[in-house]
Amino acid sequence: MIHITGQDILGLDRISRLGLINSITGLKPANLIGTISADGQTNLAIISSVVHLGSDPPLIGFIMRPFVGERHTLENIMATGIYTINHINESIAARAHFTSADFPRSISEFDRCKLIPQYLKDFGAPFVAESKVKIGLSLAETIKIKLNQTIMVIGRVEHIIMDEDYVMADNSIDLNASETICISGLNTYHRVEKIAEYPFANQENTPDF
Amino acid sequence: MIHITGQDILGLDRISRLGLINSITGLKPANLIGTISADGQTNLAIISSVVHLGSDPPLIGFIMRPFVGERHTLENIMATGIYTINHINESIAARAHFTSADFPRSISEFDRCKLIPQYLKDFGAPFVAESKVKIGLSLAETIKIKLNQTIMVIGRVEHIIMDEDYVMADNSIDLNASETICISGLNTYHRVEKIAEYPFANQENTPDF
Repeated sequence: MIHITGQDILGLDRISRLGLINSITGLKPANLIGTISADGQTNLAIISSVVHLGSDPPLIGFIMRPFVGERHTLENIMATGIYTINHINESIAARAHFTSADFPRSISEFDRCKLIPQYLKDFGAPFVAESKVKIGLSLAETIKIKLNQTIMVIGRVEHIIMDEDYVMADNSIDLNASETICISGLNTYHRVEKIAEYPFANQENTPDF
Repeated sequence: MIHITGQDILGLDRISRLGLINSITGLKPANLIGTISADGQTNLAIISSVVHLGSDPPLIGFIMRPFVGERHTLENIMATGIYTINHINESIAARAHFTSADFPRSISEFDRCKLIPQYLKDFGAPFVAESKVKIGLSLAETIKIKLNQTIMVIGRVEHIIMDEDYVMADNSIDLNASETICISGLNTYHRVEKIAEYPFANQENTPDF
């Protein structure tokens, strides 16, 4: 076993620290954020920090880090008030990963990484056609985290588009059927295999382990 | 394909809405938060909302929802200023799940769910011995999200304990080796299988898709 202290972490070079700290939270959801600028230029960004905030109202957050170059995504969300979150599946993993390259604003990641923008009537932000679970959101709040200047972007779920076969008996989404994948660290992708499902836990149904 | 609107979501019964909205963010990290009260009572809570916030300083957040009963976890963190985050692996999935039952404060989930508390010298919060990647944190900030009264708890990484074999060449953690699992929705658990690893993306190494 190794024991790495806070002091040890401070002593790491930047790349080693990024590798370590980006992987210690465990497996991360793999999503593409789709946006469009006020003048109609689309943008696509891979994000591993999407988090569920609540169901009533339905709110989802993600973390935007200050060092993310030109931050087209955040600029577009602030300008238009809308964006999409699209699950990444195995067939688009490579294309999704390379949306993280430092493309200038004039190059849309949809074009460069060969992903197809898809639109709903009356909702201007682009969905990713190849994604099997697509969410359209309206910006609800941005919260600046003073400790490190990151920004938490909170959106309200306005649209969900998916195959109806993915909806299970309890209304949750079958993420094996949608072939949704997950991320570890900065650049490693994983498919998943369901191992267990347990009931809503209470004192009475908790087994004697 | 189905198209569910924000209006449709508002019309769902509570259980259906919870099932749907808890699963739309994709796969979620599976972690146990270990805490201890000022008078020495340990607590363990399963949390699927842990998110990486930054590497310098090393910061990790998680979301505490207001409806989570007595909220022993948050009370303990506020009282002691320290807590642990422990990766859940397949062999402890069931025990980890049932820590979410409504046990009274007098019953420690460590005892009831048969998980072993483990301590570091000079750090009072309990780690989960059976977990293969364990993190000790100091409370850095709590942020109340006014939209729904949830609380984001932000901690600074003070300790990482794991098998040294999990550390890969780029210093990230091999989450397949640590058998870390992930969660979908409220109650479904998945093992993972690595499918791809890509380089840090830039304009030059982006393939012609």
